[in-house]
Amino acid sequence: MTATPREDGRADDELRPITITRNWLDHPAGSVLIEFGKTRVLCAASASEGVPRWRKGSGLGWVTAEYAMLPASTNTRSDRESVKGRIGGRTHEISRLIGRSLRAVIDYKALGENTIQIDCDVLQADGGTRTAAITGAYVALADACAKLGTTSALTGSVAAVSVGIIDGVPRLDLPYVEDVRAETDMNVVMTGEGKYVEVQGTAEGAAFDRAELDLLLGLAEKGCADLTRMQQAALSTDG
Amino acid sequence: MTATPREDGRADDELRPITITRNWLDHPAGSVLIEFGKTRVLCAASASEGVPRWRKGSGLGWVTAEYAMLPASTNTRSDRESVKGRIGGRTHEISRLIGRSLRAVIDYKALGENTIQIDCDVLQADGGTRTAAITGAYVALADACAKLGTTSALTGSVAAVSVGIIDGVPRLDLPYVEDVRAETDMNVVMTGEGKYVEVQGTAEGAAFDRAELDLLLGLAEKGCADLTRMQQAALSTDG
Amino acid sequence: MTATPREDGRADDELRPITITRNWLDHPAGSVLIEFGKTRVLCAASASEGVPRWRKGSGLGWVTAEYAMLPASTNTRSDRESVKGRIGGRTHEISRLIGRSLRAVIDYKALGENTIQIDCDVLQADGGTRTAAITGAYVALADACAKLGTTSALTGSVAAVSVGIIDGVPRLDLPYVEDVRAETDMNVVMTGEGKYVEVQGTAEGAAFDRAELDLLLGLAEKGCADLTRMQQAALSTDG
Amino acid sequence: MTATPREDGRADDELRPITITRNWLDHPAGSVLIEFGKTRVLCAASASEGVPRWRKGSGLGWVTAEYAMLPASTNTRSDRESVKGRIGGRTHEISRLIGRSLRAVIDYKALGENTIQIDCDVLQADGGTRTAAITGAYVALADACAKLGTTSALTGSVAAVSVGIIDGVPRLDLPYVEDVRAETDMNVVMTGEGKYVEVQGTAEGAAFDRAELDLLLGLAEKGCADLTRMQQAALSTDG
Amino acid sequence: MTATPREDGRADDELRPITITRNWLDHPAGSVLIEFGKTRVLCAASASEGVPRWRKGSGLGWVTAEYAMLPASTNTRSDRESVKGRIGGRTHEISRLIGRSLRAVIDYKALGENTIQIDCDVLQADGGTRTAAITGAYVALADACAKLGTTSALTGSVAAVSVGIIDGVPRLDLPYVEDVRAETDMNVVMTGEGKYVEVQGTAEGAAFDRAELDLLLGLAEKGCADLTRMQQAALSTDG
Amino acid sequence: MTATPREDGRADDELRPITITRNWLDHPAGSVLIEFGKTRVLCAASASEGVPRWRKGSGLGWVTAEYAMLPASTNTRSDRESVKGRIGGRTHEISRLIGRSLRAVIDYKALGENTIQIDCDVLQADGGTRTAAITGAYVALADACAKLGTTSALTGSVAAVSVGIIDGVPRLDLPYVEDVRAETDMNVVMTGEGKYVEVQGTAEGAAFDRAELDLLLGLAEKGCADLTRMQQAALSTDG
Repeated sequence: MTATPREDGRADDELRPITITRNWLDHPAGSVLIEFGKTRVLCAASASEGVPRWRKGSGLGWVTAEYAMLPASTNTRSDRESVKGRIGGRTHEISRLIGRSLRAVIDYKALGENTIQIDCDVLQADGGTRTAAITGAYVALADACAKLGTTSALTGSVAAVSVGIIDGVPRLDLPYVEDVRAETDMNVVMTGEGKYVEVQGTAEGAAFDRAELDLLLGLAEKGCADLTRMQQAALSTDG
Repeated sequence: MTATPREDGRADDELRPITITRNWLDHPAGSVLIEFGKTRVLCAASASEGVPRWRKGSGLGWVTAEYAMLPASTNTRSDRESVKGRIGGRTHEISRLIGRSLRAVIDYKALGENTIQIDCDVLQADGGTRTAAITGAYVALADACAKLGTTSALTGSVAAVSVGIIDGVPRLDLPYVEDVRAETDMNVVMTGEGKYVEVQGTAEGAAFDRAELDLLLGLAEKGCADLTRMQQAALSTDG
Repeated sequence: MTATPREDGRADDELRPITITRNWLDHPAGSVLIEFGKTRVLCAASASEGVPRWRKGSGLGWVTAEYAMLPASTNTRSDRESVKGRIGGRTHEISRLIGRSLRAVIDYKALGENTIQIDCDVLQADGGTRTAAITGAYVALADACAKLGTTSALTGSVAAVSVGIIDGVPRLDLPYVEDVRAETDMNVVMTGEGKYVEVQGTAEGAAFDRAELDLLLGLAEKGCADLTRMQQAALSTDG
Repeated sequence: MTATPREDGRADDELRPITITRNWLDHPAGSVLIEFGKTRVLCAASASEGVPRWRKGSGLGWVTAEYAMLPASTNTRSDRESVKGRIGGRTHEISRLIGRSLRAVIDYKALGENTIQIDCDVLQADGGTRTAAITGAYVALADACAKLGTTSALTGSVAAVSVGIIDGVPRLDLPYVEDVRAETDMNVVMTGEGKYVEVQGTAEGAAFDRAELDLLLGLAEKGCADLTRMQQAALSTDG
Repeated sequence: MTATPREDGRADDELRPITITRNWLDHPAGSVLIEFGKTRVLCAASASEGVPRWRKGSGLGWVTAEYAMLPASTNTRSDRESVKGRIGGRTHEISRLIGRSLRAVIDYKALGENTIQIDCDVLQADGGTRTAAITGAYVALADACAKLGTTSALTGSVAAVSVGIIDGVPRLDLPYVEDVRAETDMNVVMTGEGKYVEVQGTAEGAAFDRAELDLLLGLAEKGCADLTRMQQAALSTDG
Repeated sequence: MTATPREDGRADDELRPITITRNWLDHPAGSVLIEFGKTRVLCAASASEGVPRWRKGSGLGWVTAEYAMLPASTNTRSDRESVKGRIGGRTHEISRLIGRSLRAVIDYKALGENTIQIDCDVLQADGGTRTAAITGAYVALADACAKLGTTSALTGSVAAVSVGIIDGVPRLDLPYVEDVRAETDMNVVMTGEGKYVEVQGTAEGAAFDRAELDLLLGLAEKGCADLTRMQQAALSTDG
């Protein structure tokens, strides 16, 4: 099976153009507008004193996340979850994924009894919103920790990327047009040191074998390393 | 009672810097990022065929609106209404106000059996979010009508502004620091021709007399006329 | 445009027959059945010690209100909001309006850390239910303050009335048949001293100009003054 | 164990003063304000064409009921179920009881594909609200059937009363002060012909034996017969 | 009217085969799988320290119950109430019945400030699920009290059974096929000493007279006595 | 780091005792009680004609799944989601995983416009409930397809198992005591032919490297192959 070239002309192992704009908002301790091509996610990290009740008196901090899409962010307008009165399974799932991913690089003790609430709101969706959210949220979190004076609460960095097999060809960072056609779809979250935090692979059509899995893991490793460098570059300038 | 000058140095009858960015999103028929100073609202107008069930077969179109604030848009993070599972009274009230204001300049017959759904999402809040939303939504609506080929569905334009009395002095376009101190707070929606669509005045502290009401109405008329000019300027360029 | 005379034979600046029956219930501190023609609203003021959490320790009291319509109060039966599991925007909006209107004449310090909960339940609806609710609720509130021994918590009185333009003619206190035909509809809440607490004007069809606005404000002033006299008369008898 | 006399001086087998006011509302097809002493319930019967989906095309009608208490109807104010966003178990239970009781005397075929919706709203509660609701709702239902021209849809009448054992003495029609002290509490719904529609007996404290049950059934029979006569008297006048 | 024999060949006053399996679960203090023929209910009694807020400091314990049906337990799959987001009236009603029935044999003082939460989950439904639930829950409750070392908190036992009139014949313990045809349906909860805790009789079709009521009460008494013996037998073995 | 032996004496690559009981319920087309050690999940496959609205007229079938835990299934009782009025994120996530896993082996065309609804209710939880659910649900689905006469709708089989690293040692099929201590936790769903359907790995504590990931994938492959053989054995007997 030969794949046609990618619509946007990228190499199979190439990310879309990535931009990371820090301090996009005035109120939260950290905020980032991150773009993976046309996908645009606003990530905010709001710090507050205290922790949820079940953690009080432990001396440990907490980090949690919520993900949502604006109604007009999608191709066809989506209904607003606040109006429907309930949060869908996909939203729940992604919010939990973002929270777990960021907590993997947090030293709760160094954070002290403070909570950092991450909000990832998708302003425009073109595939890869959850991986853009994680990648941007890490930068917002780093800024929030700096502002709190607890940079030591961060034990590393995290970045995330999607990979998939389209017409038999493994590809990095899928936009919507590729995502809907992918036989297999995987989201991978890795630390800056190249270790895995989350691996979520799903056979959309046919099941995949071990060789395909290995190819996808390799692509994801390359993409996460690229994103890590971009995060570091963004954070190395004055916020 | 003498008022101290405005913190941002504006004259009492002067708007904050206003920017109107059209086509901020790729998917909806019309979209505008509007800024009233630090207040930033993303307004989208999504068009779809058909109308709600109670209107089917009438030959008439429909326009409706939803307003919401991102959690990190406010000074202190607000809880997400989708997570709370219910929409608050303030959100309901503003959504209804926006919808009524826009419907005031719609010719349902010319629109045909199409629905335009307006979404106003506050990305950053610094007072006047509902008036910025109405002013921006009108521009998004105009772009959507143009794209639908039904410009004749618009019978006029609408713009909105807040006015209030602070330390006894009537002022135009209140930012948050003035809004919380206002004795009286009024939101006024006017057509481009200078007629009233909505007048909502509230005594926050002491009740206000007719003379004060008249001063506020005058200020609002000036502000809406200024905003109308800016809307026209924004729409006169290629979208 | 000449208007046909009013169906009920009233002059344009004349209220419907108003009755105020105090102590209609045995349990709450104050309770009033108020009738504006066929509109019938049961207003109860229940007093309790303590205030909401965000106000504890402030030494200040609190007044809040809830408005609702019985299912069979309307022309065609309305669905019960408890059964639907959510409160509609209109209900929210009116509950908030009633609360703000009554708080305008409350001295929180004199009330002490007590809460007065106002319930306005529409038993029969024929236009003007929110203005009847405010006018009746004030009387129930006055009775509750008297029973609590904190009459000084009331700094004045409030009354409310609707006005509108029907076939070009401004009219006072619209019943349902006039309300649905009104081009412009305004609800005005005023203190007993003739100052404004709330002005809410809405163009239902065409936008209105300043001259029309002035006429409506004049009519409302007359109506509120009449209602203030009736409130005083009702309160001057033994409860 | 000797019981002290009843606080209100009634004989043990005597009903409280009962009043039945027909046509208390203008809109619904039938409406009754019923009072059992201080207990005051507004019963409305709203007729509409058509039946629920699961019954369409059957040629049969439907009768359903909803019960609710106004917040200020109780000794201490109760929270509003619409605000809580969910209906409590007690409300559900009583709504279902009222519906079943009325359906026991309905000939669905004679009703045709029409629905009668019963609303029983407790304006003031002093014990026995569900039995007052059933007794009043029957009268509202009869008026609604008459207005629909389908009197033949009624195959009989129903009335309901509470009975209980207080300090060992069986008593009829318990007000709140007796209800809270009752060892056993029973609600009985009977047809005008003296047959049982519902028997719901509950041991509040100690379990009861067969002899006590028999005494309670006898009292209830007497009470329902009295109520049936009052219903007939109310319905024999012009509505 | 002569009834055809029962489909399952039982005598009219005979229970279905009953099995009571204790300790079906490892985690809760008491747990029972009870079967009334094909009806299969899993009853768990979970003990925890402390009582609801309104009971704190009273020195008294609390027992409460929740009933639910698995979606696939019924003839045709039922929707899951958690997915619908609200609990139906029938579920509420039965949960409350189970709770009241068990509390009738609890000495709150002997229980101390502990709560026992009863969960009755219907795994398979074939009529009589609520009576099976009560009968099984009593055994689970007895095991939980034993494990807590507060056997004295039980002042007696309770069992429950359904009875009904089918084709004019009173019958004990109705399976689904009889239940849907019953003219009258009654659920009776009795103590081990033969006293009544709950009597809930409903005319499904025609109202019933006193003679029929008496026959049903007699049948239920027989059935509850049989069930009480089975409960005792089950509890007399080592758990 | 040396791991202590497993509490239950198993080898690191050994499954817990697995039992698969078919036809545990009478009503649904397929039903299985599956046990992974103490973990006990009731899986039902209910067939119905027709498909969701968005799929009507396509000629294609649909398979969907819901997962839930009984309150008393867990170590400490969990609150019932129907009572809380909302489904938690974990429940949503697992329901979606089960649905996707089963759909991977469904030929929608061969199924025709029929829907199979899978219900997986956890009766007792001791780790690995989602993998037990998938493994059992496949067997229930196979029985349902056989009963529908559409065995050809199944294009293969699926089984699932959890693996994790405890004290540095990779282990298969974690019970609760191991699950809470695992540094890395992975759920793997595979077809009977040894291909991957889902891979979900999560670093609970430290991130994991590629070598660890490879070890876990190997263990999972072994476990899924064992489970596939047990599924085949169960299905080879008469249902």
